[in-house]
Amino acid sequence: MSQYQQETAVEPVADGLFKGHICGDWNIDTNPNGGYLVSVVMSALSQSLPHPDPLSVTTHYLRPGIPGEPCEVSVEVVRTGRTLSTARATLRQQGKERIEVLTAFGDLSQAVGVPHQLSMTAPEIPPPEACVERNGDIQGIALPITERLDVFLHPDQAVPGKAQKAEINGWIRLKDGTPPDTRSLLLFVDAFPPSVFPLLGVVGWVPTVELTVHVRKRPAPGWIQGRFRTDDLEGGRMIETAALWDSEGSLVAQARQIGLVMQSS
Amino acid sequence: MSQYQQETAVEPVADGLFKGHICGDWNIDTNPNGGYLVSVVMSALSQSLPHPDPLSVTTHYLRPGIPGEPCEVSVEVVRTGRTLSTARATLRQQGKERIEVLTAFGDLSQAVGVPHQLSMTAPEIPPPEACVERNGDIQGIALPITERLDVFLHPDQAVPGKAQKAEINGWIRLKDGTPPDTRSLLLFVDAFPPSVFPLLGVVGWVPTVELTVHVRKRPAPGWIQGRFRTDDLEGGRMIETAALWDSEGSLVAQARQIGLVMQSS
Repeated sequence: MSQYQQETAVEPVADGLFKGHICGDWNIDTNPNGGYLVSVVMSALSQSLPHPDPLSVTTHYLRPGIPGEPCEVSVEVVRTGRTLSTARATLRQQGKERIEVLTAFGDLSQAVGVPHQLSMTAPEIPPPEACVERNGDIQGIALPITERLDVFLHPDQAVPGKAQKAEINGWIRLKDGTPPDTRSLLLFVDAFPPSVFPLLGVVGWVPTVELTVHVRKRPAPGWIQGRFRTDDLEGGRMIETAALWDSEGSLVAQARQIGLVMQSS
Repeated sequence: MSQYQQETAVEPVADGLFKGHICGDWNIDTNPNGGYLVSVVMSALSQSLPHPDPLSVTTHYLRPGIPGEPCEVSVEVVRTGRTLSTARATLRQQGKERIEVLTAFGDLSQAVGVPHQLSMTAPEIPPPEACVERNGDIQGIALPITERLDVFLHPDQAVPGKAQKAEINGWIRLKDGTPPDTRSLLLFVDAFPPSVFPLLGVVGWVPTVELTVHVRKRPAPGWIQGRFRTDDLEGGRMIETAALWDSEGSLVAQARQIGLVMQSS
């Protein structure tokens, strides 16, 4: 079992109820990363649904997770069909809801409709070795998660407040060498710095309200390339749009979130 | 009360439980429009949450609604905070789940973070009077909903299979003259033909699996302009991205859905 699998594992304790542990090594500053919490919920969902791949995963972030503490995941299967299954799940710690998930699973190895294809091409960016490693210095916060994930940023977008656009491109992979899969894409899509930083500089906290990920394809082994863009910010509420490509250039996930961009304190 | 308000009204019958009626005049062919079903759920949510505006609304479509039949909406408030409230809701008919909603409400009249603004400009398209009215002829199906909504399509995108891109632009408003609000935007974002039609022609059924709408601003009175685009279709699963602008040119909603593009039968 990889480190990622171990540290996101849950075990069933009753019908629709799982227990796990929130590891402190996936923190952004003092809070567990959102994509890490979702990965734990995915462990419970994978054990509850007949289909292998998360096609659509919506997460609402209600309260920060608590590192180093146990957690409970409850799953309610809403509907199971031939090609799709739908479920809700809640991750709780100390009796309080931390994240709430609504998801549809399917089988990405099976086509379900027309044979036509449309896709978005990955932008050309410098290779990982010519990019800047994400570390706490850039944002001025501790990033324990960089012991678990390799995250490299486009050099022109790695310095807060120096770019003309709210966009970040870069590369990501699990540090322990585990190849990407349709579950870890949910982690990768939430582990880059906020895309408003290159334009606005480091502002205050940027909490996600809701993030929806569409997993499009099972990824090939190797680096995952990501693009994150904010083209809509109003009243402190931003819409950030993301796309991930695998090492063969296939679009493997798209995502969109609404987050708050707080004033620096 | 406007026709839209009347035909989407629900009344509380118990704690977290509402009763309503699914009107047959909002159909796409023989099924109630998805955005109409969401509007009914929104009536129940508005009565359940302290904040006025839906900021993020994710809907999973489990089974078609049944026109002309009563419905039941159950609401569970997950969390109520100072600036945000979160809830889940289920619309049932004949005892079966039809749609499942997860949402966050807030107050769009209040800023919650940094003063910076980013926005997307509405594309220039011909005015409504130079566009083509959406009617059943274009798709070869009955569209009772066009008695409730004015929907006008860009003339270059109104003929299936004649365009170079999977994109539809156009205009929409309620036929009874009710001005748009943050609830009816959820209807408008789901009432255009699928954006794959101009490129692929009319294919089979295009059922939505999941649709997430982000409402960005309370709309000014008048027409709503919409743009719908599919740039990702693989294995019969499409990601369609939408944006709505009001009559003053403000971006008022963004949305994204995963849907299936079935073979024509």
